[in-house]
Amino acid sequence: MVALSAGKNLDLFLDQIKNHQPEAVALADKNLLPQLKERLDTVSKNGTLFNPPEVFGGAEGLDIIAGWDHADLVVTGIVGCAGLLPTLSAIRAGKDIALANKETLIAAGPVVLPELKKSGSRLLPADSEHSAIFQCLQGTPWAENARLSTGIPTPGLTGIILTASGGAFRDWAAEDLSKATVADATSHPNWSMGRKITVDSATLMNKGLEVIEAHYLFGIDYDQIDIVIHPQSIIHSMIELNDSSVLAQLGWPDMKLPILYCLSWPSRIETPWRKLNLPEISKLTFNSPDTDKYPCMELAFAAGKAGGTMPAVLNASNEEAVAQFLEEKIHFLEIPKLIEFVCDLHRNNLIKSPSLSDVLEVDKWARLAVQDKIKKGL
Amino acid sequence: MVALSAGKNLDLFLDQIKNHQPEAVALADKNLLPQLKERLDTVSKNGTLFNPPEVFGGAEGLDIIAGWDHADLVVTGIVGCAGLLPTLSAIRAGKDIALANKETLIAAGPVVLPELKKSGSRLLPADSEHSAIFQCLQGTPWAENARLSTGIPTPGLTGIILTASGGAFRDWAAEDLSKATVADATSHPNWSMGRKITVDSATLMNKGLEVIEAHYLFGIDYDQIDIVIHPQSIIHSMIELNDSSVLAQLGWPDMKLPILYCLSWPSRIETPWRKLNLPEISKLTFNSPDTDKYPCMELAFAAGKAGGTMPAVLNASNEEAVAQFLEEKIHFLEIPKLIEFVCDLHRNNLIKSPSLSDVLEVDKWARLAVQDKIKKGL
Repeated sequence: MVALSAGKNLDLFLDQIKNHQPEAVALADKNLLPQLKERLDTVSKNGTLFNPPEVFGGAEGLDIIAGWDHADLVVTGIVGCAGLLPTLSAIRAGKDIALANKETLIAAGPVVLPELKKSGSRLLPADSEHSAIFQCLQGTPWAENARLSTGIPTPGLTGIILTASGGAFRDWAAEDLSKATVADATSHPNWSMGRKITVDSATLMNKGLEVIEAHYLFGIDYDQIDIVIHPQSIIHSMIELNDSSVLAQLGWPDMKLPILYCLSWPSRIETPWRKLNLPEISKLTFNSPDTDKYPCMELAFAAGKAGGTMPAVLNASNEEAVAQFLEEKIHFLEIPKLIEFVCDLHRNNLIKSPSLSDVLEVDKWARLAVQDKIKKGL
Repeated sequence: MVALSAGKNLDLFLDQIKNHQPEAVALADKNLLPQLKERLDTVSKNGTLFNPPEVFGGAEGLDIIAGWDHADLVVTGIVGCAGLLPTLSAIRAGKDIALANKETLIAAGPVVLPELKKSGSRLLPADSEHSAIFQCLQGTPWAENARLSTGIPTPGLTGIILTASGGAFRDWAAEDLSKATVADATSHPNWSMGRKITVDSATLMNKGLEVIEAHYLFGIDYDQIDIVIHPQSIIHSMIELNDSSVLAQLGWPDMKLPILYCLSWPSRIETPWRKLNLPEISKLTFNSPDTDKYPCMELAFAAGKAGGTMPAVLNASNEEAVAQFLEEKIHFLEIPKLIEFVCDLHRNNLIKSPSLSDVLEVDKWARLAVQDKIKKGL
């Protein structure tokens, strides 16, 4: 560990710095920088920090440590468009990326792909579905770089099957969703995640966003990506090969493994984690998602196929709509309606090959468009 | 296709020769050799065979074509110890082997492993379970030759999970098995196979034999191999890695795919075969096998752990016992009893590092020992 960043949680950050003794740190919230420096001074003096790190602040600080000379791999876990800039800095510096920031590909795919090609930096997926696909692809006979392709089709890969838990409402009738409360939507049956992502899981937008990410990451057509509801979340996703063979990666639902695999790839690191026990689980079930019940899924496929800035608009309008839902400003079923409305509004202004500033601009615009529509009435 | 062999079915053999126009052919049944030559003459004269092949006969003939100069890969599908000799000839000639003859590893593992090491010939598994494991192992980070190891442990491979359909009696109560008839035991729910193998599937001895084969093929300890009953036969087997990740290969139950993979490995060949559809299958179930109901499984683990000539005795006594059952000379539950009796009888004569003739000798002895025990009364 050579560099570390944080937002504003100084207590946790100080613990991490003491544990990992990095060469450099960056704090996103510049206002807290004097406080951080003071506390680092104290721990240096009392001997719990042997080599005080260089300290940077703000977006520039994140950029600096993302391209830090001694780093081989950069884990980008900053949420939202704020994570996009440091991720791009790391890509431009030729670092391999453990990708946990989804905007990098979903919103900025058309910007990021050429940069990856230029610098040779590689994206290692940190979420469980794409990690499963990535793990399965290691077993395909195609060239090493095709397994890491970002945007380059893998020959012989004929399909990707993304599994979805089905989220909080998988056992609800479609007609009951109009009554869904924030409490209902934020209790996930399998995975322990943040509130925003848990709502995305209830709308199945999380899976729609993963479809777009898979398209960019593995260079596969949207028509070759399928979503299957698999309530037990044991098969984390599958690939289908040209001879009809299907490979799958399985495990307990736990984010630790895909993150570890980013760090250990192309090798693996031994862990004492609980072994999968299929007789204990007893059964794995599968069904096709109900497109009427989950309109977000289709909106995501449509935005992906439209390409250009449309996935950025989809992502931003979804984030804003979910935020409004979490504040109880709109009903659950109004989330897809708002996204559809804003995507439709963007259709004539779609930029096919956007620049980074185009992406950041439509992101802002889409959020305001959602707020505006709510004000004017749905 | 450069060489072809057959037992005694001349009509089928002639069709195959016309279709594939091999350089050489071998017929196991020497008595039919004049007939074959006459019919080959006829089809040569009438123009349906352009390049008449060289013709060989008997065990020597099989040996000659198994090491045929122009062959890169030899598919060894001859059943029983009769398949052992030509397989060894092919190994000694340094050919890669698509292995469908199970005696090669189960009975003659200790003889074959050093020969493989010497000649560099590689074993590609043609049955669905070992093919699944082999396909999954391609995705491991360990050296190319470890993925093809025969007897060499694969670092990082911590477990193999062999799936079993559960065979004809999976839904029978253990106490009803005493009434099982030949008709009951020879109707397999998922796979269309010969009568002998279908009975092995009903006793779960097929899985026990696969455990021994997996041990030799992948160089893994018996304690690291698990059997899981999976009635749908969709997951063909799994591997467990040192970081707790599990990889699986899935597909419809059809032998065509594993055989094709032997031929296409390390690449894959496109097929128009039906794609797997998990929502259509709806559920996959798993349970631990009942060791009281399936004593053959434990007998196989014990024989494997004993090593040397014991697996050859297990295999031969099982074949003889099943043959006697198919002729209605013994009851279904007497199959494991006979095997256990003969294995016990062999224990003091076990040869740790047997020669090929030792293996062939104990094979004959075990068959006679089964017959003898039946004569003397069980």
